[in-house]
Amino acid sequence: MMDLYELTMAQAFWSAGMAELPSTFSLFTRSLPRRRGYLVAAGLDDCLSWLERLSFGPQELSSLEQLGIFPTKFLDWLGDLRFQGDVRAVREGTVVFPDEPLLEVDAPLAVAQMAETYLLNQATVQTTLATKVSRCRQAARGRPLAEFGFRHAQGLDAGMKVARVCRLVGVEATSNVAGALEYGLGVSGTMAHSFVQAHEDEVSALRNLAEALGPRATLLVDTFNTERGIAAAVQVASEMRVRGVEVAAIRLDSGDLDQLSRLARHALDGAGLFTVKVIVTGGLDEYRIAELTAGPDPAPIDSFGVGSAMVVSADAPLTDTVYKLVSCSGRPVRKTSSGKVTLPGPKQVWRSPGFAGDLLALRDEAAPSDAHRPLLELVMREGQRTEAGRRSLAESSSHHAGEIASLPAELTDLEAPAPFPLRLSPELEALVARMDRSQI
Amino acid sequence: MMDLYELTMAQAFWSAGMAELPSTFSLFTRSLPRRRGYLVAAGLDDCLSWLERLSFGPQELSSLEQLGIFPTKFLDWLGDLRFQGDVRAVREGTVVFPDEPLLEVDAPLAVAQMAETYLLNQATVQTTLATKVSRCRQAARGRPLAEFGFRHAQGLDAGMKVARVCRLVGVEATSNVAGALEYGLGVSGTMAHSFVQAHEDEVSALRNLAEALGPRATLLVDTFNTERGIAAAVQVASEMRVRGVEVAAIRLDSGDLDQLSRLARHALDGAGLFTVKVIVTGGLDEYRIAELTAGPDPAPIDSFGVGSAMVVSADAPLTDTVYKLVSCSGRPVRKTSSGKVTLPGPKQVWRSPGFAGDLLALRDEAAPSDAHRPLLELVMREGQRTEAGRRSLAESSSHHAGEIASLPAELTDLEAPAPFPLRLSPELEALVARMDRSQI
Repeated sequence: MMDLYELTMAQAFWSAGMAELPSTFSLFTRSLPRRRGYLVAAGLDDCLSWLERLSFGPQELSSLEQLGIFPTKFLDWLGDLRFQGDVRAVREGTVVFPDEPLLEVDAPLAVAQMAETYLLNQATVQTTLATKVSRCRQAARGRPLAEFGFRHAQGLDAGMKVARVCRLVGVEATSNVAGALEYGLGVSGTMAHSFVQAHEDEVSALRNLAEALGPRATLLVDTFNTERGIAAAVQVASEMRVRGVEVAAIRLDSGDLDQLSRLARHALDGAGLFTVKVIVTGGLDEYRIAELTAGPDPAPIDSFGVGSAMVVSADAPLTDTVYKLVSCSGRPVRKTSSGKVTLPGPKQVWRSPGFAGDLLALRDEAAPSDAHRPLLELVMREGQRTEAGRRSLAESSSHHAGEIASLPAELTDLEAPAPFPLRLSPELEALVARMDRSQI
Repeated sequence: MMDLYELTMAQAFWSAGMAELPSTFSLFTRSLPRRRGYLVAAGLDDCLSWLERLSFGPQELSSLEQLGIFPTKFLDWLGDLRFQGDVRAVREGTVVFPDEPLLEVDAPLAVAQMAETYLLNQATVQTTLATKVSRCRQAARGRPLAEFGFRHAQGLDAGMKVARVCRLVGVEATSNVAGALEYGLGVSGTMAHSFVQAHEDEVSALRNLAEALGPRATLLVDTFNTERGIAAAVQVASEMRVRGVEVAAIRLDSGDLDQLSRLARHALDGAGLFTVKVIVTGGLDEYRIAELTAGPDPAPIDSFGVGSAMVVSADAPLTDTVYKLVSCSGRPVRKTSSGKVTLPGPKQVWRSPGFAGDLLALRDEAAPSDAHRPLLELVMREGQRTEAGRRSLAESSSHHAGEIASLPAELTDLEAPAPFPLRLSPELEALVARMDRSQI
């Protein structure tokens, strides 16, 4: 899981006798994706696992040899390579903003460079998806969500990582069986249109489903005509109730979900089926969910099943993450490319209470006040995870819940969030000015 | 790799004695993603491999048992399950349109239903990405492309599948070493900004790189100021040339790429470095590439490195694929949900030469004319791949090249492609009308 240029760079550093120079790389985002007021940091655990495993086995070295571009002595050097550096990172689930490092790697130049592709891949996809899922939760205003999107995720790994970030962000359930088992979410499943289609008529289909699944049965009512489907579901739910079984829910998957949910609730209540829930699915994202939960008389929906638009972060599928050298041999460095300027030096982010504003400082600066807390913590020392590097997903999820609880409303607006104030410390400002003057 | 509802459906079919009913499911798209005039079918090989492997081992059965929702006898039935059905599919690399099946599965109802999540996941991500890559190739108007996007792909599987569809669509190279080795692409790598930053000055950095990599060296010139970077690169390339080594290229990664590429070409030509290439990267997609290659005096760019926007299909990250029951026990079925109507029955797509229009027919209808060819072919019979199911990626890539060569320009327009004419056969029309009348 590496790009060629990381290996050619390693080779060039090795040729120039620079491979072992101490260096710091910083992984951060250059900007917020559109309409986002914040990001949810995610992916650290996978990044650390990869660094722990980093090595080139005989098969990999032989594949690289076949490319015919690497000297044998360099391949020998690769064969001995392990990651023995330090990593500082923000906790998973932390709310972060552009220019704030998600993680920093201190390691020999050639080794730290090699981690670029994997670390970016996992930090980017998981942060992008955690942020999207967080927005959907905001929009649901306390109603439970279930994630139904594996089928439309961009590949199998993304499908699994969606389940992971759902656990992180506090989504109750996923349809993905492997994801639920791996990451400790509830598992949720309803029924397929095929079940109704496979029967001669809709009532027989719903009856067969209710009999097979009992209190787990969720009756999908839109295969043909939703109003008739609701009537059929109420009929079957009433029959089951007479026999002492309460089905779980009615599910609406198309049409005017606001109007149909009111119709379904009214029909269920009219039959005394007060505890049978109304679940909606079908093309939902945070914008659509917010419409359904808004106002003094929101749609009577008990929970949302969210799929495709959430699992690819359809309105903003990309987060502009980069992994940049900020220090080499103790010397702070930066890039001044047009539109892609980076800030020099290893850093720390200091956060004041209530998200009043963050301070981006050089790593070794003192705390700006007793009220500020540092976001970056040592998670790996000399290639071994520290205690902070071994946090469980459940702990990260609790941490995230605390973050969201204290996030001001202006940052969570779905359409036009307020910009978040990030200041540079005077020392960082002075370093930038010094480097500007000497044109580095 | 399965959603819970597929298992609960299987359980419900099994309880109702319907699990073994012969059925056909069809995988197709309901609409074209925005601005697309066509789709490139991809992902079949992974779908067939999954069907070949489909089985529940002791560990999986024990995980399912722990969920506490499945009867033991049903789990026994799952333990014996293998895929022994038939699959018909269009060849990978084929140009396809909405409502045309990418594949159809004939299998017992409960088994065919279980394949939904995996087949959709792989067909969707690979078709979405193959289509995006195809658009970038159209925009490059014959200039080579290299794929540099693994770091920003949505996860590791997507990162690998990007390389796969690049091979399918005819992209020359990828930066992804594992992807290049797995799928037989060229591997391409340049240099990192970190290499320049790690040195005291830019000229020394470029010189060290050129010395380490010789004719493979691509000099990245935008770390600080691109005009000065170009001058430094020309100086180093000239020094190397005196020593008999021609470096490969200059790479531009930011700024006004049209203007800077002209500047770079002019500076290289002025120094007699006519064979040193100009490569551009940085925020490219099909729209930006098309601007750079348009008109009578296009930018003098030799090749494009394309990353993030391509590998997540940023402007249209989702394709609206579905997997629907179309036949059960020999009876054609459909869905008439609001906005989500599907067409009944197993199908065949008949294509006339030159993309004049396709005919969507029932599977067993005769060819409409000698000039029409059928798109769906039998790729798996009773769980075993046929010869057509064993095509190599190289064969599929050749097939795709033929498809693209005959595609009319109005379908490849990047902004406003013409709609493609798809007609239904009279028999399919008559079946729909019959079902409308009987309200099924």
